[in-house]
Amino acid sequence: MPITAATSHFADRLIAAVRAKGNPVLVGLDPRVESLPKGLIAGDGYEAAASGFVSFCRGVIDVVAPLVAAVKPQAAFFEQLGLPGMRALKEVIDYAAAKGLLVILDGKRNDIGSTAQGYAEGYLGPGESSPWGCDALTVSPYLGDDSLTPFVDTAKQRGAGIFVLVKTSNPGGKRFQDIIAEGQPLYRHVGDYVESLAVRTVSSGGYGFVGAVVGATYPEQLAELRQAMPHTWFLIPGFGAQGGTAKDCALAFDTNGLGAIVNNSRGIIFAHSRSEYKDRFGAGRWQEAVEAATHEMIEQLKAETPARHL
Amino acid sequence: MPITAATSHFADRLIAAVRAKGNPVLVGLDPRVESLPKGLIAGDGYEAAASGFVSFCRGVIDVVAPLVAAVKPQAAFFEQLGLPGMRALKEVIDYAAAKGLLVILDGKRNDIGSTAQGYAEGYLGPGESSPWGCDALTVSPYLGDDSLTPFVDTAKQRGAGIFVLVKTSNPGGKRFQDIIAEGQPLYRHVGDYVESLAVRTVSSGGYGFVGAVVGATYPEQLAELRQAMPHTWFLIPGFGAQGGTAKDCALAFDTNGLGAIVNNSRGIIFAHSRSEYKDRFGAGRWQEAVEAATHEMIEQLKAETPARHL
Repeated sequence: MPITAATSHFADRLIAAVRAKGNPVLVGLDPRVESLPKGLIAGDGYEAAASGFVSFCRGVIDVVAPLVAAVKPQAAFFEQLGLPGMRALKEVIDYAAAKGLLVILDGKRNDIGSTAQGYAEGYLGPGESSPWGCDALTVSPYLGDDSLTPFVDTAKQRGAGIFVLVKTSNPGGKRFQDIIAEGQPLYRHVGDYVESLAVRTVSSGGYGFVGAVVGATYPEQLAELRQAMPHTWFLIPGFGAQGGTAKDCALAFDTNGLGAIVNNSRGIIFAHSRSEYKDRFGAGRWQEAVEAATHEMIEQLKAETPARHL
Repeated sequence: MPITAATSHFADRLIAAVRAKGNPVLVGLDPRVESLPKGLIAGDGYEAAASGFVSFCRGVIDVVAPLVAAVKPQAAFFEQLGLPGMRALKEVIDYAAAKGLLVILDGKRNDIGSTAQGYAEGYLGPGESSPWGCDALTVSPYLGDDSLTPFVDTAKQRGAGIFVLVKTSNPGGKRFQDIIAEGQPLYRHVGDYVESLAVRTVSSGGYGFVGAVVGATYPEQLAELRQAMPHTWFLIPGFGAQGGTAKDCALAFDTNGLGAIVNNSRGIIFAHSRSEYKDRFGAGRWQEAVEAATHEMIEQLKAETPARHL
């Protein structure tokens, strides 16, 4: 399947990109001042940090663009720096897109319908089709069905996608997500609704452009949700630093190795600090560490999951 | 009670501000291109729209600063314009703060704990204490307890507050929020947890700096939650254009008229389009319409709620 025009269905674009690269790795761009390789941030203050974020993220993108289908900038770390951070975010999104990567912004946005429309119009749509130029956005479900509608409608118009939080990777996620109601946990109620949106937006490839965030740290629930949500593409956080393994992700894929992208942020972008790579590369050769960590994750997923069929 | 320094407890600052103005009105700054008075947006494109948003919001702030305690910029409408919108948001926050208003940013942010810290540091804290300079931020609860902790810790350090979504004002909010689990709806589970945070962060004034968003459109639930959450300050959306009335808000207050601020966005800022004010003022005198609508809302709340005791 060729990579088709920006206005085509997001799930088709995602399938094409994953097949073109032959793996389901998603690289999370989570720049943190205290974790960046030394020398990338020159001076103090938000401007200096934001410039460092751009240099760093461009450096990561240069390495991973030939290897993976997509990157996921984490909005929080850019917003943390105020306006300079927002300028950096835009630069990073544009740079990743120019390198041929799909860009999934992790913003976990939402609001009541008429306001959610603002977020949808702002973020959804690659290139010039929206001011931020993202292929997809993560979205929070707490505000209910009418809060999701504007994202679905705008995504449809612009060939974009959304990933709705269903079961998050953090330990505290269970406080509300695992509450049992009418015989099943809340995350299943949310999952069932997201699946209904995926069915409504399905392409010939079998997946809707409405996806779900489901953490690798809960492999049983991942398998359960895969069964319950056959038309929903999963964005899987929690791999690596948070404890999720390739084996944990195995049941998230369909038999063709499609249906899931697995995110790794710290384990790839800060690989120069990991014990396995520290001595081998060190901070000075941090991009080589990024490359090695990306290859390592690809190999793990190919060894342990249906992604081997990609 | 005098309005105390920025680093003092947020609930104390809120109580002081509400008492100083003698009413619980919160003015929502929700600029929308299609609703602004004619002539405020000169030209096309995001830059022109963002400049118009600044002029408009400054105009609203000039009118309401002597009348009310706080404003609530809606992040979505600024983010919708990309980077020019973010610059406008910062200008609006700073202008409102300079005019002595408390600024509650409506961003409904959240993420897993280590990432939520980014949002907390970016937004929480007035003046120079954070890059965005907000007194408080709205926060979404779906990610659970460890996602709220960084907001609570940062708010404590910086004399800031958060308002956690409990029962939202939109019709679709009920899809997940009203699901019954263990004998009570999800919003009560969330409310109970928020109340526990309010208790942990309570000041001598009786309220914590962790508040809750509870819609005016569900007056029975508002009364129920007020009973269940005696230490939690409520931010009440849904007044006016969404259908909530002063009478609907009556049971959200404590007997002193404290414990709630009632938001009105469209009904105040776009009052020049309301049938009551259209002929009287029209678009040319839109600021007079804002003033009249603010006074009208203050009078309604004073007539129908314990806010009369302020």
